[in-house]
Amino acid sequence: MSTTLKFTVLLLALGFCQGLQHNYDNYIEEEEGVEPVSQASKYGSLWPLPQKVQTSEVSLKLSGFSFKIVDAKGSSAGPSCSLLQNAYRRYYEYVFGGAKKQKPSKTWRTGPSELTELQVWITSPDSECDGFPSVTSDESCLETFSQLVYEDEYGAKSINSTAIIDFPRFAHRGILLDTSRHFLPIKVILANLETMAMNKFNVFHWHIVDDPSFPYLSRTFPQLSQQGSYHPYTHVYTPADVKMVIEFARLRGIRVIPEFDTPGHTQSWGKGQPDLLTPCYSGAEPSGSFGPVNPILNTTYEFMEQFFKEVSSVFPDAYVHLGGDEVDFNCWKSNPDIKKFMDQQGFGQDYSKLESFYIQKLLDIVTTTKKGYMIWQEVFDNGVKLKPDTVVHVWIGGGSNEEMGKVTAAGYTTILSAPWYLDYISYGQDWQRYYKVEPLNFNGTEAQKKLVIGGEACLWGEYVDGTNLTPRLWPRASAVAERLWSAKEVTDINDAFNRLSVHRCRMVERGIPAEPLFSSYCPREYKGV
Amino acid sequence: MSTTLKFTVLLLALGFCQGLQHNYDNYIEEEEGVEPVSQASKYGSLWPLPQKVQTSEVSLKLSGFSFKIVDAKGSSAGPSCSLLQNAYRRYYEYVFGGAKKQKPSKTWRTGPSELTELQVWITSPDSECDGFPSVTSDESCLETFSQLVYEDEYGAKSINSTAIIDFPRFAHRGILLDTSRHFLPIKVILANLETMAMNKFNVFHWHIVDDPSFPYLSRTFPQLSQQGSYHPYTHVYTPADVKMVIEFARLRGIRVIPEFDTPGHTQSWGKGQPDLLTPCYSGAEPSGSFGPVNPILNTTYEFMEQFFKEVSSVFPDAYVHLGGDEVDFNCWKSNPDIKKFMDQQGFGQDYSKLESFYIQKLLDIVTTTKKGYMIWQEVFDNGVKLKPDTVVHVWIGGGSNEEMGKVTAAGYTTILSAPWYLDYISYGQDWQRYYKVEPLNFNGTEAQKKLVIGGEACLWGEYVDGTNLTPRLWPRASAVAERLWSAKEVTDINDAFNRLSVHRCRMVERGIPAEPLFSSYCPREYKGV
Repeated sequence: MSTTLKFTVLLLALGFCQGLQHNYDNYIEEEEGVEPVSQASKYGSLWPLPQKVQTSEVSLKLSGFSFKIVDAKGSSAGPSCSLLQNAYRRYYEYVFGGAKKQKPSKTWRTGPSELTELQVWITSPDSECDGFPSVTSDESCLETFSQLVYEDEYGAKSINSTAIIDFPRFAHRGILLDTSRHFLPIKVILANLETMAMNKFNVFHWHIVDDPSFPYLSRTFPQLSQQGSYHPYTHVYTPADVKMVIEFARLRGIRVIPEFDTPGHTQSWGKGQPDLLTPCYSGAEPSGSFGPVNPILNTTYEFMEQFFKEVSSVFPDAYVHLGGDEVDFNCWKSNPDIKKFMDQQGFGQDYSKLESFYIQKLLDIVTTTKKGYMIWQEVFDNGVKLKPDTVVHVWIGGGSNEEMGKVTAAGYTTILSAPWYLDYISYGQDWQRYYKVEPLNFNGTEAQKKLVIGGEACLWGEYVDGTNLTPRLWPRASAVAERLWSAKEVTDINDAFNRLSVHRCRMVERGIPAEPLFSSYCPREYKGV
Repeated sequence: MSTTLKFTVLLLALGFCQGLQHNYDNYIEEEEGVEPVSQASKYGSLWPLPQKVQTSEVSLKLSGFSFKIVDAKGSSAGPSCSLLQNAYRRYYEYVFGGAKKQKPSKTWRTGPSELTELQVWITSPDSECDGFPSVTSDESCLETFSQLVYEDEYGAKSINSTAIIDFPRFAHRGILLDTSRHFLPIKVILANLETMAMNKFNVFHWHIVDDPSFPYLSRTFPQLSQQGSYHPYTHVYTPADVKMVIEFARLRGIRVIPEFDTPGHTQSWGKGQPDLLTPCYSGAEPSGSFGPVNPILNTTYEFMEQFFKEVSSVFPDAYVHLGGDEVDFNCWKSNPDIKKFMDQQGFGQDYSKLESFYIQKLLDIVTTTKKGYMIWQEVFDNGVKLKPDTVVHVWIGGGSNEEMGKVTAAGYTTILSAPWYLDYISYGQDWQRYYKVEPLNFNGTEAQKKLVIGGEACLWGEYVDGTNLTPRLWPRASAVAERLWSAKEVTDINDAFNRLSVHRCRMVERGIPAEPLFSSYCPREYKGV
C-alpha cells in the first residue's frame, strides 16, 4: 500500500508559496520515527526556516526507483512547463543523487511505508512558465521538500510527515556580485545562482561594470568592453553569456537586476567612449585624468539614451539599478567648462545640484524605456525627484538605520544593505552579526515599515574572484537569507547554528564549497581543492 | 647555433642552493629584449626574491620540442635519481604546460636565439636522492628557473639571460596546517605542499591531532582514531596516506614535522585510550568530563613510550613537535588524586611544576627514540630542562618579540610564528603586515640572532577546511615565504606588490586557487568554482 504526499505550490497568483501541505491517506503506525543523526534542531536542517513547521515522528521512505514528482490534478501547469520540469529534475538529483536506471528486479514493489509521489499543484491561473520572475513571484517549495529528506542510519532516504506553511517575510532578497573589480567566470556566477536558490534568494543584483573594468559587451557600443574590459575576449560577458545567466536564474525563480552605475564609478566607460567623462584640470590645463560622467554635454545624454535602450531590452526585469553613489566632485570643480555651466544654471558652489541635474535627466531617459529603477541612497539624499515606484538602496550606516526612516517617511520603497557588506571580513563567526540584524529596527509607522521590501547581501569585488568568492559568500550570506525570509521572531542563535551547520554541509554535498562555521566535519567533505 | 644555459644546483653539501649561474657560450645580439607585459618590477615575477639577481635584456626562446633538462657533466646525481627526475618533469610541465608529443616537422631545427638545454649540476658528494630533507638541505633552483620563463607577445616561451646567486636567509620556513579542527582531504594537503614548493617553503608542520578529532591512524593504538576521529574510515589518515604525504613532500624538498601536542589539546585522545586523561571532579565526584593527560599514572608514560616509538618510525624527519601549549590547570586542581600527588612531590599550589614534571618525562621518552623535538614556548617558559638542540616555537606576542630574546639568551634555537597566525583574517591587504615583520627585531647579540633558524605561518583550523583553505592561505603565506627567504633589506612593499601579483597569477595558472591581492585580473583565470 503506497502513500501519497500531496503538496501545493502556489506560484505567482498569491505572491508567495504556501509551502508543503501533506495529506497522508494512511501510514503504518508500527514504523519507528527515524531521526537523522546530525539534526540537533527540532527543525532539522531547514534553512531558511519556514513560517510554520510541524514535524511528526512518522517517517516514510523514498525510493529513487519509484518516486515521482507529478503535476497534481487540476494544476494549471503541465509537462509543457519547462521551468517546472527543470525544477523536478534538479530536485530529483539533489534528493537521490542522480538518476536510477531501472528497478532492481521485476518483482520489486513499493514498500508499505513509502512515499511514492509528490504532487505539485500550481493554482495560479497564469502559470508563467515562460515568464520572468518579478517582485511578486516566488517558487521555492521544492527546495523545502528536498531539505526535509534525510538519510536514516542505513542510508535510506526518508522524510517525516510534516505540515508546512511558508512564505517569505520580505519580497526582495538579493545578492550583489561585482564583476568589475574582478571578472567572474560564468561558471562562478551560475554556481552562485544555484546556491542562491538553495537559500531562497530571489534577486541577483549584477554590479556588472565599475571603475576597474567594463566586461559588459554592448551590441550598440562594443568599444566599451573592447577598450574598457580587462581583456576584450576572455574577460567580457557576451550577449549569449548574459542570456544564459538570465535564463539560469529564471529557472530558479531569481530576478537579474543589472546595475550600470553613473555618474561616478565610470572610469572604465571612458576608455571606449571619448568625451563621456569629465576632463580634470590641473590649473589651466587638462591633467589627462578624468572624473565622473560629463553632465554638461548633450552627447552624454544621447549616449545614455541609446545605451539604456539596449540595457532595457537585454535585461527583462522590470527594474534596472542606476547606481548614483559616491560621486567625487573634485574633478568637476577643477574643470572651467563645468564651472561656467554651474554659474549659468545658478547652482553656486553646490555640486550636488549638478549631480542631481545629471541624475534627473538620466532617470527621465530610463523612464522612457518603461523600466523602474533602483538607486543608491545618495540620489534620494540629494533631493532628486524620483518616480513613486523607485527603490532606494540603503548602504550607509549599520544595523539600526536612520536613513531607512527618512526614505520610507518620504514614501519610497527601500531595501537594506548597510549591515550586510560581506566583503568586510573578520575573524570568527560573523554570520551571527548578519543574522541579528532586524531590518525594521528604525523609527517609523507601520505604513513606513511596509515600504521595506527586503535587502541584499553585497560582496564587493576588491578581494574576491573565482578563486575564493564562493566559500567567502556561503554560508555567510545564508544568515541574511534567513533574516529576509523567516518570521521576525526567528532569532534563536543556537538553533540557527545547528540548522545552518547542516545546511552548509548540504551545500557542500551539492558541490558548493561553502566554508565551515566552526570546528566540525561534513559526512561528505568537499572534494575540490 | 644553439645556446646552452648552464646552471648549478648545489644540493645538501653546502646547505644552500647556489642558484642559477648562466654561462652563455654565445648569443645573437640583434635580438630585442622582450619584456613580459605584466611585469612591472625589474625583478619580474620572482618570488621569493633571490639574494642576487642580475637580469639582462638578452632574451632566448625555449621550445617544448627541443628543450631538455639534463644532468650536467660531473654531476653527482644521474638518471637514477628519481627525486631529480620528478622535479624535471614537474618543471617541464610548469614551463611548457604539458608534454609536446613530437617535433612539428622532420626538417625542424632549433632556432638561432634558442635555449635548448638546462644542465643541472649536483655537486654534493652525497646526492641524497633517496634521503629525506633536513634543516640543512635545500633544492629550489628549478622553481627559480621556471619563474624566469615568460611568454612574449606572440606567446613564445622566453627567458632573459640572468645571473642569480641564491640561498635562503633562514633554514626553517614552515607552514602549519591543522587537520584536527577540520579534516583536510589528502588532495588538499598535497595541493598545498605543491604550492609550498612554489614559494620555497621547506617545512610542513602537520598539527595532525588536537581536541576536536584524532585523524592519525596509529598501528599500535588503532582505537585512537577509531574512537577519536570524526569518522573512523572517511576522516582518518591511514599509514599509506601519511607515507604518501611524506614522499610527496620529500620530492619537493619539504620536511614533514608532525605535532602530537600534549598534555593539553588532547580531548580526542581520551576517547580511544581510557585513563589517559585526567578525570575532572565536581566537588567530591567525577564530573564525567576530562582534562589534560593524567601525569600521575605510570600507564600514561607506558602509553607515550609506545606511541612515540611508532611516531618516530613513521615520520622520518629528525624532529617531532611535542606541543605543550595552553595547559588548563582547572581540571587538575579539581582532582583529589592529583592534589595528593602534588603534595607528595612538594609542588605546593604550582601546577606549572606538575606540567613540567609531565613534559620532562615525555621529553626523556622521546629522546630515547633519537628524535630531536620542537616545543611551544610555554615549555621553555616553565623552566623545563631541554636538550641543547631543542627548537622553541614562539607563538605569543606580535612582530617585535621579547620572548625571542629570552629563548635565544638561554641558548636555544628558535622559530617565530607569533606575527604569522594566518587564521586571523581581516579586511584588506593583510599580507603587507606579514611582510613587514622582521624576525630578528629583538634585543640580543649576534650570536643570539643566529639561533633564530626561521619561522612558520600558522593556519589553525577553526574556520578552514577543504572548501576555503587554499585561497585563504595563498598568497598571504607567500609574504612570509619572502620574509624568510630573501635578504633582510628586501622590504620595498610596492615592488613586492608587483611581483606578488604576478606570482599569484602564476599559482592560479598552475591550478592553485590563490586569492587576489586587490582589484585585478589574471590572463588565465581560475577555472574551478
